[in-house]
Amino acid sequence: MPNISQKGQNMPQSPIRKLVPYAEAAIREGRTIYQLNIGQPDIKTPQGALDAIKNNSIEVLSYSHSAGFLSYREKLAEYYKKHDIPVSSDDIIITTGGSEALNFTMGSITDPGDEIIIPEPFYANYNAFAETSGVNIVPIQASFEDNFALPPISEFENLITDRTKAILLCNPGNPTGYLYTKDEIQQIADLALKHDIFVVADEVYREFAYDGVTHHSIMSIAGLEEHAIMVDSVSKRYSMCGARIGCLVSKNKEVTAAAMKFAQARLSPPTFAQIASEAALDTPQEYFDDVNKEYTLRRNILIEGLEKIKGVKVAKPKGAFYCIAELPVENAEDFAKWLLENFQHNNETVMVAPAAGFYSTPNTGLNQVRIAYVLKRENLERSIAILEEALKKYNK
Amino acid sequence: MPNISQKGQNMPQSPIRKLVPYAEAAIREGRTIYQLNIGQPDIKTPQGALDAIKNNSIEVLSYSHSAGFLSYREKLAEYYKKHDIPVSSDDIIITTGGSEALNFTMGSITDPGDEIIIPEPFYANYNAFAETSGVNIVPIQASFEDNFALPPISEFENLITDRTKAILLCNPGNPTGYLYTKDEIQQIADLALKHDIFVVADEVYREFAYDGVTHHSIMSIAGLEEHAIMVDSVSKRYSMCGARIGCLVSKNKEVTAAAMKFAQARLSPPTFAQIASEAALDTPQEYFDDVNKEYTLRRNILIEGLEKIKGVKVAKPKGAFYCIAELPVENAEDFAKWLLENFQHNNETVMVAPAAGFYSTPNTGLNQVRIAYVLKRENLERSIAILEEALKKYNK
Repeated sequence: MPNISQKGQNMPQSPIRKLVPYAEAAIREGRTIYQLNIGQPDIKTPQGALDAIKNNSIEVLSYSHSAGFLSYREKLAEYYKKHDIPVSSDDIIITTGGSEALNFTMGSITDPGDEIIIPEPFYANYNAFAETSGVNIVPIQASFEDNFALPPISEFENLITDRTKAILLCNPGNPTGYLYTKDEIQQIADLALKHDIFVVADEVYREFAYDGVTHHSIMSIAGLEEHAIMVDSVSKRYSMCGARIGCLVSKNKEVTAAAMKFAQARLSPPTFAQIASEAALDTPQEYFDDVNKEYTLRRNILIEGLEKIKGVKVAKPKGAFYCIAELPVENAEDFAKWLLENFQHNNETVMVAPAAGFYSTPNTGLNQVRIAYVLKRENLERSIAILEEALKKYNK
Repeated sequence: MPNISQKGQNMPQSPIRKLVPYAEAAIREGRTIYQLNIGQPDIKTPQGALDAIKNNSIEVLSYSHSAGFLSYREKLAEYYKKHDIPVSSDDIIITTGGSEALNFTMGSITDPGDEIIIPEPFYANYNAFAETSGVNIVPIQASFEDNFALPPISEFENLITDRTKAILLCNPGNPTGYLYTKDEIQQIADLALKHDIFVVADEVYREFAYDGVTHHSIMSIAGLEEHAIMVDSVSKRYSMCGARIGCLVSKNKEVTAAAMKFAQARLSPPTFAQIASEAALDTPQEYFDDVNKEYTLRRNILIEGLEKIKGVKVAKPKGAFYCIAELPVENAEDFAKWLLENFQHNNETVMVAPAAGFYSTPNTGLNQVRIAYVLKRENLERSIAILEEALKKYNK
């Protein structure tokens, strides 16, 4: 039998997926699982987006432009301008999800052996995209106690080598929920300019900023035009995870020209989903206000609930819809597995994502989990109650 | 300004895209262009697939399974069984187009510096996928005079080194239109088994086999289960290029497990397009019979028309919807550019794909073009007339 590649063997498995077989077994046994482990919102997709699909008049489902429909890119540029991101349709390449935008970015700016500095914990699939491109991720640990604020900029500077190609930020953060301040973003920008490296900002949770705090895009910083690359997606913004539409945005023409060659090789992003995404741009502000209000309530229920559980500590999120919690257990992965394999309360249990998989440094975050507050309030309340019962039993 | 990657600089541009700026300029000048350069069929998408989209009842457009909807994979397995390809839903990973299946395949079976042997001319984007994975393509020249039949198997064997991971075949061939015989497929299979390497077969044009000739899949060969990987797509079969749905199929569990890690990292294939693709499997046989008849007529018009032009020679296609033609010009790319920049006949011109870009060996196929017969018969006839006029004028 021929061997698969080292790359195929080394590809890390997402910490979210690891426990899926245990969850499937629990479901087969008839148990109900509250899925706090993945960022799949239950929020309805905007009706306008769904209607655009139903009302499409396509007869030949053809390729679109490799950069995506021009009409969509033009409308998207208008949307960004409203968010203080001054870009034109030429600066945008529509991709198949934010994932593809990250892959195109890695391919365009890194060669095997190059380095990207990322504050950890970080979105676990960055590991997979780095493995795909042969890039080394250089982690820099953010502090749980500081709610995962930006680590001191001197620590970033200490890690810069001649192989460093970029600093990658997720803002607001998955899995941390941390929202970088304007000052933090500016510090990163100054460092990138000083060392002439890229800043890649994954801003797919831009709209999910709570408590009246403003999101600051890397694309809004004057002088950083040649160094900034933004990754975006419709998945969370419009509860359209299944569309698989994202984009890569940069004013750096060499970057977009290189990314376009990757884009042309895969021909085009999905046509139906682009139609829905273009229509989604007309979603009225009330939709976002309602969603924001709902997530704020959910977050508050979750955080307050978790903090009431003995031994549980939470890093307070200001954005996105995740938080990292420390549990009174030695190994959160063992506990998460046990929740699925051995625990039930009124035939129900919860599924959480062990946070160690979001750290690049080994043996870090072992007692932490990522919890997504994407469920209805009553289900979140019930989930907290289950978790409390489970911890009592587990620690007996 | 920070530098982009070597990879980004080296990414080859598709020969189909190179001339696009010239075409855009010609269109701006008001000229009509018959696009013989790309494989975008004008055939209507099956109504059932389009209706499934219109009748969808999605309220939350969520991620699907990373391997694609189980219902779709199960139905797809049934379809394959009918085509003498004995696979189950577990052997199938739904991808975002055949392109992604090729990327997953390269990532799963090759590391940077590994080699894949491919008969040339071949689908130009293989170069881009190889560049993405750092793989070296080792070309083996197929002969125009033999209509691009499989080169002698001894020539393949001579090229096998300890870095060779696979032989890649496109069957029926893009850009050649060649359909491999059962014996040719068996020869490749025997060689792969002898040297314990993979055979990757891009079979996206399976249904487009003319003159009553049968397509033979690499997946039908007994004993090759652990070595065979098939790449497939709905793009051409159902004229659904814009769906971006393909798949990777293999009985080799290590290959599908590695590919699944790539699949999970990008979360899922597009949901709407999977709905359409699943429904497309119910397309009645008459649809394919009609399409096949239409393409046969188009091919005959094209081949007969081209052969009547002085100095033009054609490699006769038995499948897909392309052919390679030799033109009485020194450099077909210059001619193709000239067609767009300097030629018009009744304010019309044609766009062809210079074939050199489909060869990996430098300075090969310089006088050849790839012509796609994806246009209506009258447009094909008109295109041939324009080409004849143009060659007369160009060679004066």
